[in-house]
Amino acid sequence: MMRDIQPLVAPRSIAVIGASTNATKSGGILFSNLREGGFAGPLYPINPRAPDVMGLKAYPDLKSVPEQVDLVYIVLPSQHMEAAIQQCIEAKARAACIITAGFSESGPAGKALEDKIRDAAKHAGLLLAGPNTIGMVNVDCGMMGSFVNFPHWEKGGISLFTQTGIFTGALMRQVMDSDVQRLPISKSIDVGNKIDVDEVDFLDFAADDPETKVIGFYIESIRNLPVFVEKARALRGRKPIVMLKPGRTAPGKIASAGHTGSPPSDDAAVEKALRDTGILRVEDEDDFVGVLRALAMLPPAKGRRVGIATTSGALGVIATDLVTDYGLELASFEPATLKKMATIFPDWLTPANPYDFWIGIDVVGAQEAHETGLSAVFEDPNVDLVLCTLLAPPNADFPEMGELLRALRRKHDKPVALVIYGSAGGRWTKEVEGAGIPVFATVRAGARALAMVANATL
Amino acid sequence: MMRDIQPLVAPRSIAVIGASTNATKSGGILFSNLREGGFAGPLYPINPRAPDVMGLKAYPDLKSVPEQVDLVYIVLPSQHMEAAIQQCIEAKARAACIITAGFSESGPAGKALEDKIRDAAKHAGLLLAGPNTIGMVNVDCGMMGSFVNFPHWEKGGISLFTQTGIFTGALMRQVMDSDVQRLPISKSIDVGNKIDVDEVDFLDFAADDPETKVIGFYIESIRNLPVFVEKARALRGRKPIVMLKPGRTAPGKIASAGHTGSPPSDDAAVEKALRDTGILRVEDEDDFVGVLRALAMLPPAKGRRVGIATTSGALGVIATDLVTDYGLELASFEPATLKKMATIFPDWLTPANPYDFWIGIDVVGAQEAHETGLSAVFEDPNVDLVLCTLLAPPNADFPEMGELLRALRRKHDKPVALVIYGSAGGRWTKEVEGAGIPVFATVRAGARALAMVANATL
Repeated sequence: MMRDIQPLVAPRSIAVIGASTNATKSGGILFSNLREGGFAGPLYPINPRAPDVMGLKAYPDLKSVPEQVDLVYIVLPSQHMEAAIQQCIEAKARAACIITAGFSESGPAGKALEDKIRDAAKHAGLLLAGPNTIGMVNVDCGMMGSFVNFPHWEKGGISLFTQTGIFTGALMRQVMDSDVQRLPISKSIDVGNKIDVDEVDFLDFAADDPETKVIGFYIESIRNLPVFVEKARALRGRKPIVMLKPGRTAPGKIASAGHTGSPPSDDAAVEKALRDTGILRVEDEDDFVGVLRALAMLPPAKGRRVGIATTSGALGVIATDLVTDYGLELASFEPATLKKMATIFPDWLTPANPYDFWIGIDVVGAQEAHETGLSAVFEDPNVDLVLCTLLAPPNADFPEMGELLRALRRKHDKPVALVIYGSAGGRWTKEVEGAGIPVFATVRAGARALAMVANATL
Repeated sequence: MMRDIQPLVAPRSIAVIGASTNATKSGGILFSNLREGGFAGPLYPINPRAPDVMGLKAYPDLKSVPEQVDLVYIVLPSQHMEAAIQQCIEAKARAACIITAGFSESGPAGKALEDKIRDAAKHAGLLLAGPNTIGMVNVDCGMMGSFVNFPHWEKGGISLFTQTGIFTGALMRQVMDSDVQRLPISKSIDVGNKIDVDEVDFLDFAADDPETKVIGFYIESIRNLPVFVEKARALRGRKPIVMLKPGRTAPGKIASAGHTGSPPSDDAAVEKALRDTGILRVEDEDDFVGVLRALAMLPPAKGRRVGIATTSGALGVIATDLVTDYGLELASFEPATLKKMATIFPDWLTPANPYDFWIGIDVVGAQEAHETGLSAVFEDPNVDLVLCTLLAPPNADFPEMGELLRALRRKHDKPVALVIYGSAGGRWTKEVEGAGIPVFATVRAGARALAMVANATL
């Protein structure tokens, strides 16, 4: 059975139980963020001790609100949670997000309370998210439903479903604070302990959500692996699914139980099921962000053959090992390509893949070397993906570098990853902003992202 | 037989054949860098067509120089190389560094020329480095012997021996341009195609060099694996050896041959020999820099038990998987530690390892939470290494954070790695500068560095 979770993740109206007039308390901050975030629908503070909260009329309880609301955020201590959920049920709210922590992750008593709440909500058909969550963001409808403030979400095609605050919280904020290479986000739904709405529900929603192009999961358990895998398989080739699921190791499983109360699982079985389904499993938080960025920015790959354009022989060798590790293969350049490549080489040197054209800078200058070198790799019909590992010291720099990369990306509809070391790297990165070229801090991250783009469709 | 390579890597006098008066040519740039770099001994430009080069009296050839020089840099086209080497031999120079490319990496003709030069030098007892190198840096004696200009080398205990310019070049420059977390360097010797002086010679030298505390190799071949391994074993526990040797995969081996003319090797045999010897093999350029930084900044580990102090549950779980992957184990905290940890928790929560004390910020405020939380992990006698994965949004920040970390590092002589996500991370990183606390961009890099510090002595 498919459940409609739109009232939870894309609500038309929101109430906040625990909307405090004190802007330093969680309930006050969350309400303020919703208010300032520009939520498209009506917003109702529930507070029996204040006539208004931050300029909006307050209601003493949910049933006093003049409409049946889609979503209720609850920011109250756990001992008041049963009563708050009861309010939601009586007022026929469609969904509730329990921000408060101290439930199944805290031990048997917390788990018992969480079970009671789940049963009551289930019986009434109330959708639940949380408890123990940083909140939910929906950039499309302006819902900044978190006690962390995010001034800079970049609207785009990535939708996240997580069991942690880090990707709605500090890490995302760091990514969003940068003026380049920000992640284009549609939704970021942190369900914490995952009391009810789960990865299957979210997959159903995201599959049909026109704003969602790439789906990212940080989850510590998969409630129903066969069903999840079956639904994910149906999306293969249409919307890539990236998953970070830690707790792979025995100590990691214990840590996961302490974090979100997640039951242990057989990681080998999970790994196999995910792989067979084409879900892109990533290894850590950096990998997660990098692969999501690549998928959001790049076209699908037509094959697994990578052309490595480099101005460092060492980075070329390192890149070759890494793309091989990740299941890509080196393209064989066409004779015409090799001929073009040789035009910026001294006589004694024969081009190959990786194509290290540093010496071309000495022969024809930085601009011509990069123009000839990069375009040769992009143009070759045997190259499905382009990995550029470039050095950017002053003598390799020239003013038109950014425009060159933008033009090559426009002209050739191939996935490309850029890795730059050297003083001009910051400027080059700024200059390709908005051109659909992901830039990575390390060769590994670039190689990995291209491999995952290939895995997404091949 | 042990060869003394001091004339090559720590020369008392230097001549440059091909010292151009044109400051845009390689020979001119290299000479200028040596001149400006503050080399401690005499410096002789060899140039038959100029009376002086950049203010120093020029000599028409090497034998006109009034002393027997230790080291001769040669920056001439390859067709003049045999004659230049002959000059070195006749003038009884002790070592030569051939900057020029176009030898064994270019094919059979280049290889034949390289072999001829090697034979001539060997017969005369002339030490050789290169060809195909970016040059050599010795921070201790002020030798900036490269055609890349490095304004900012940080003097310290890391000595590098490489077959690539990237670690003497753009990557090192990027590391050095930062105002924090710079690598403390003693020597960086790029031997390019490694015509003569090799990793065994360098190991002999570095073993006895009082300035060298940590040895880093980027090499694409090991000439004599049994001898290298035997010498490395003798250094175990005294000076850590970090090695990046790409060409692990079949395509990587081919790329390596094209880069430095290196012969292919059986990577499984190399891997086993290195591991058995306690050499720390790293995986890519980022890993290389991160592990070197950790080894240079941190004391040895007394055991493999890691305490994870975190303000993100997700990063704690990810960190747990990664430290387990890399061979560390989670420390069991003492009852007294757990008691202290619980003082900043609500009643319903029990501390564990990883110790996620984010909630303590709500309970007692950011400063007290970090003071209690971090000191508890550092103090525990079962904790050999400390991994801090911290969130730094505004509500977790406080002015004394840097001083807290510095004080903990001073008080407890344990290896520590810091990973920070969030807006205050830059300031925290600046505030721990000079305190011997390595900061990493990802949980993986931090976990990996601590594991390698443990591997170095255990």
